Amino acid sequence: MITLDEKFRALEADNAPGQEVRQDLGELNAIMRGGKFDGVPVDFSHGDVDAFPPTPGSAEAWKNGFDRGGHQAYTEYRGAAKIREGLADRLGAFTGRPVSADSELIITPGTQGALFLALGATVTAGTKVAVVEPDYFANRKLVKFFGGEIIPIPLHYQGSLSENGPDLNRLEAAFKSGTKVFVFSTPNNPTGLVYSDSTITAISALGAAHDVTIIVDQLYSRMLYSGEVYTHLRSCDILPENLITIMGPSKTESLSGFRLGTAFGTSKLIDRMERLQAIVSLRAAGYNQAALETWFQEPLGWMEERISDHEAIRDELLKIFRAANFLTATPQAGSYLFPQLPPLSVDLNTFIRLLRHQAEVTVTPGPEFAPAFSDSIRLNFSQDHAAAVAAAARIVKMVEVYRT
Amino acid sequence: MITLDEKFRALEADNAPGQEVRQDLGELNAIMRGGKFDGVPVDFSHGDVDAFPPTPGSAEAWKNGFDRGGHQAYTEYRGAAKIREGLADRLGAFTGRPVSADSELIITPGTQGALFLALGATVTAGTKVAVVEPDYFANRKLVKFFGGEIIPIPLHYQGSLSENGPDLNRLEAAFKSGTKVFVFSTPNNPTGLVYSDSTITAISALGAAHDVTIIVDQLYSRMLYSGEVYTHLRSCDILPENLITIMGPSKTESLSGFRLGTAFGTSKLIDRMERLQAIVSLRAAGYNQAALETWFQEPLGWMEERISDHEAIRDELLKIFRAANFLTATPQAGSYLFPQLPPLSVDLNTFIRLLRHQAEVTVTPGPEFAPAFSDSIRLNFSQDHAAAVAAAARIVKMVEVYRT
Repeated sequence: MITLDEKFRALEADNAPGQEVRQDLGELNAIMRGGKFDGVPVDFSHGDVDAFPPTPGSAEAWKNGFDRGGHQAYTEYRGAAKIREGLADRLGAFTGRPVSADSELIITPGTQGALFLALGATVTAGTKVAVVEPDYFANRKLVKFFGGEIIPIPLHYQGSLSENGPDLNRLEAAFKSGTKVFVFSTPNNPTGLVYSDSTITAISALGAAHDVTIIVDQLYSRMLYSGEVYTHLRSCDILPENLITIMGPSKTESLSGFRLGTAFGTSKLIDRMERLQAIVSLRAAGYNQAALETWFQEPLGWMEERISDHEAIRDELLKIFRAANFLTATPQAGSYLFPQLPPLSVDLNTFIRLLRHQAEVTVTPGPEFAPAFSDSIRLNFSQDHAAAVAAAARIVKMVEVYRT
Repeated sequence: MITLDEKFRALEADNAPGQEVRQDLGELNAIMRGGKFDGVPVDFSHGDVDAFPPTPGSAEAWKNGFDRGGHQAYTEYRGAAKIREGLADRLGAFTGRPVSADSELIITPGTQGALFLALGATVTAGTKVAVVEPDYFANRKLVKFFGGEIIPIPLHYQGSLSENGPDLNRLEAAFKSGTKVFVFSTPNNPTGLVYSDSTITAISALGAAHDVTIIVDQLYSRMLYSGEVYTHLRSCDILPENLITIMGPSKTESLSGFRLGTAFGTSKLIDRMERLQAIVSLRAAGYNQAALETWFQEPLGWMEERISDHEAIRDELLKIFRAANFLTATPQAGSYLFPQLPPLSVDLNTFIRLLRHQAEVTVTPGPEFAPAFSDSIRLNFSQDHAAAVAAAARIVKMVEVYRT
């Protein structure tokens, strides 16, 4: 049996986004080549909500919640009924299938909270869980924490659109050999790949045929770049019996400081998630839930502008990295880039620490997303445009300095 | 091995405070005796933050946090360093032993979040955990969720001050036979019993002698009634190696709608709790953390007035219940009352549903705090004074109608 020490070693979080401040940067001067690079510090480990501020009206919505008093402070564990009603309508319309506010929706402390509850509701000791590689780093940690077994599914993301996507043969084989849960993100974190309509349809049908619970993290599905098409799994004709969709306003809408997310789908699983919520943190902070009133109700043109601003940054960073011959897939949605670096004379973690120390640029190491990606870094390019471009140029310069 | 269905049956939450709205009240008319009672509805399942509003300045502190932007939205998982610094000083001063802001303190989504993380960091399959009966209902659920084994420790709370407290012989026997963790609340939830100085000293020494991790929930330790004395376990001379103290501003300070709590103590456990936090919900909502600036810095006289207001309600409710011969211990701190009802002609859950339907009074059933308490109900009397008194009188009337 796994000991608590082993269990928590697997949860090591020092390289997780936002945790870099806890790293010891000593000893770096000894291996640093050349001097420091000038420039505005950029933390690509998460979006900059000062560059892309929260949805207009979100602070006022919070204050309205606060002023509503006890009723808003002590909501049901699954969230305030009235807020769920509006949300269910809007999420149902967006994802192409009605959502019952009463039985099929839970408000959670961020989409991280939703993922934790969804996996906690479906994974126990020995449960086989298919996990895409690369994908959001918490997926693997959560499966391990609940005692499940990870069945890795490779994702092709550097090919043509028709080649890209998860390996469906591997997925079917996993489903046939006892996999009970499949968790994945689309748009994929860290690559920005959007699963195609045919892939989503196939996954849904496979889940239905083999009675596999599907947990689909659609956190970035609103930030879809020009010409791209998004298929919501829950809009498929053939659906698995157990399906949870996860979305939240932390990214595109910059409401991460409110810790709000939602999960919606199979009522039996939503019930379990609420029971778990009751012992985890009771509820998403009551007053904060009120900020969800702004979600999917942003001012006219606001979302379009936000998307085109990000697309402009994406295009410029792609140009910079490709000019330096970093193999970098084009994100179809979301604000992540996952460039592959040429061979370096230092290991990736050292390079990343040097990058932070010498060039004031923070990125997330590829192995957070699956062990094999020790030559890749993830950038969240939801940043001030000029600062992001300058920081990307510094990354290229740093690679020149440290390449073999 | 326990199945997920069994696991989640143990987490049944319909009787938990705040969840009563999800209960089906149908069929009650058939067994109801007499008509409905007039009166202002009172929900004793949790405090009324409209009657006792949040600390002055807490909404403004939130807005300051929001205005600080990205820095406050994306804090370390254990909470913003600057806020932890001030908190560590104030919590150290209050509890009689210094707290290191860097290594010994984590900010959590409510004290529920702190309890979840503390037990998640110390309990795994087969871990024996001593749990007081009665005590906060989530303790038992959390131990079960993490696969631990509950070792029940009876609490004497209806005797004289010198007789009251946990059964220390049972506790020592449990510690001698492999118990690894002891979790308890003082002031006790649901009885309001404050563990005496000699009891706390004995528990700390026993924990040290038998290498038992102690998790002490001191949520209500600030609301101490006149003449009472409180001993902080972490101020003892002999301390267990692994000790976590939990406090938060949700109750006395009415900040529950912010979902804020803290845990402080052994750095190794705080590290584990942060790793777990990273996959549970990342952090307590960033902007909300700013409201902790008001904690232990309330306006002069504010806390004294809040305590004396509650003491007045306590005294009046005790008079009402004792006049009706409900055996009710005097809470020494906090705002819970745990009266024992005389034998009724309907089972407790039915009585509680009738109470809500017929008299518009909501209470929490005793068995939430340990299976044996099927003749007791818990009231959180942090309510409008007049409404609480009238509602207590309706409880007495309802007992008259339904007693055997």
